[in-house]
Amino acid sequence: VSGSPAAAPVVLVTGAGGFLGRHCLRALLGRGFDVHAVGRTAPGDPRVGFSPVDLHDAPAVAAVIRGVRATHLLHLAWEVTPGKFWQSPNNLDWVAGTALLVRAFAEAGGRHAVFAGSCVEYDWSVGGVYTEDSPSASRTLYGVCKDATRRVVQSYCGNAGVRWAWGRVFFPYGPGEPADKLVTATIRALKAGRPTRSSAGTQVRDFIHAADAAEAFAVLVDSSVQGIVNVGTGVGTAVADVIRTLGRIAGRPDLVRLGDLPTNPSEPATLVADARRLTGELAWKARFNIADGLRDTFDSSAENPS
Amino acid sequence: VSGSPAAAPVVLVTGAGGFLGRHCLRALLGRGFDVHAVGRTAPGDPRVGFSPVDLHDAPAVAAVIRGVRATHLLHLAWEVTPGKFWQSPNNLDWVAGTALLVRAFAEAGGRHAVFAGSCVEYDWSVGGVYTEDSPSASRTLYGVCKDATRRVVQSYCGNAGVRWAWGRVFFPYGPGEPADKLVTATIRALKAGRPTRSSAGTQVRDFIHAADAAEAFAVLVDSSVQGIVNVGTGVGTAVADVIRTLGRIAGRPDLVRLGDLPTNPSEPATLVADARRLTGELAWKARFNIADGLRDTFDSSAENPS
Repeated sequence: VSGSPAAAPVVLVTGAGGFLGRHCLRALLGRGFDVHAVGRTAPGDPRVGFSPVDLHDAPAVAAVIRGVRATHLLHLAWEVTPGKFWQSPNNLDWVAGTALLVRAFAEAGGRHAVFAGSCVEYDWSVGGVYTEDSPSASRTLYGVCKDATRRVVQSYCGNAGVRWAWGRVFFPYGPGEPADKLVTATIRALKAGRPTRSSAGTQVRDFIHAADAAEAFAVLVDSSVQGIVNVGTGVGTAVADVIRTLGRIAGRPDLVRLGDLPTNPSEPATLVADARRLTGELAWKARFNIADGLRDTFDSSAENPS
Repeated sequence: VSGSPAAAPVVLVTGAGGFLGRHCLRALLGRGFDVHAVGRTAPGDPRVGFSPVDLHDAPAVAAVIRGVRATHLLHLAWEVTPGKFWQSPNNLDWVAGTALLVRAFAEAGGRHAVFAGSCVEYDWSVGGVYTEDSPSASRTLYGVCKDATRRVVQSYCGNAGVRWAWGRVFFPYGPGEPADKLVTATIRALKAGRPTRSSAGTQVRDFIHAADAAEAFAVLVDSSVQGIVNVGTGVGTAVADVIRTLGRIAGRPDLVRLGDLPTNPSEPATLVADARRLTGELAWKARFNIADGLRDTFDSSAENPS
């Protein structure tokens, strides 16, 4: 009987059934990780292990971490109920759950933890291009809770000898995104022959294809870089240009209507990542520019109407 | 049968059995509150109600809050194991416990919550006199976790319509303080006829008598002031002066020895509260200056040797 080959590192993934989660599973598998999902919903991928466990039950999660000998953690789970998550009191449960999860992970022998943060943590009263050391000052409970959790994670992981990274995601879009989001809602309208419905769309945002964001998280799991890392492309696109591009892709530029909804005056004009940590230190490169990414999302939506 | 008089507001107190907690119970009773303690240890005061409950068991705490119809919360409990609390992983459990506690309190109908923070939350690389908007940047897990929790509390309470205050305690001393703290350790040495043992004692700190700190918390519970409030006197005293004063009070100035221990170079020279919110907006006034406070502590220690 010959010895078994060296085992691949095992990544425990929370939120694996979510929009970014499903893309992250593919990106991690593509890098040769053993992937084990925990949470409520099985990811439905036979290559991915799964333990149904309440993530707020720290001892149960710790037992899974020990059972699968997880060395890495990718923690994506958080409150995401559309329209409600910004101010939902469930954000407090995720502060609590994440604090207990990272402790359980470290004490079960985990060595490297990566967390999904958000560009909402930054101070949006300023707007513009954000570096990772731009001040955090969110107007939302969601952003405050994410930022507070990052502070705890940073201090604790430093003490516990756990390598950590916190990816602040800008504006992800792509196959599988929630139906109320800009790109998917616009595609649905165009395919149904309805006019698009939006503000004037002058806001410039850093849109990132979910597969590219997922690859960024896989790179964070697979590297020794520590700290906060913006997960954005560094390129801003006006919302109006996203809608116009989708109108052209659909062959229905006639359905593009801008300005039917008021522009929210509290929304900053520009929210773009300084992506130099990701592209430089981590050598990440976007696979999709905005036009290709919107085309991919449009085509996927055609293949999987819902 | 005549109607009962209007009920006094009910304050739920965590950490009631701790050093500050015992002083706070007296201060709250003195202001006419009904006081109900929760936690592991009964406060042993017949005027104070008590429910033994694990503070990390949010549903159990919520049941107590509803049962006693608590309108106010004074949350003092946290990790305090001497010598260990600065970097203890238990700080994460208190981040989690506090987030779940404040949610349970608000959802059970609580209207006003007061929390014990710490001057350790401030950036000690600077030193000096701290106002409430001085930057937070603790070097300790304890300070980071307290500060992160305050951020969550501030955002959540704003949403939930709960009045909140966060008292940042400077350097409390007084009857009942842990035996390893400066004042009590010095009193013990002097009473045992041993020389005092300290650094040169040039560090200037804002020492506050525990009864005065407790009165500050009672004022916060009893007022409509919101936000962060320094719980300090605004007066700094050198550690050497504290030791010399105790030597005189003991009648043993000959036992005062300064400089036997090295001065920790990472300790800031001065840590003093700007106490104008407390003394101005809240009209709090210290009962003890440092000499009277040390005398009181010395006398209490004589009455209750341990």
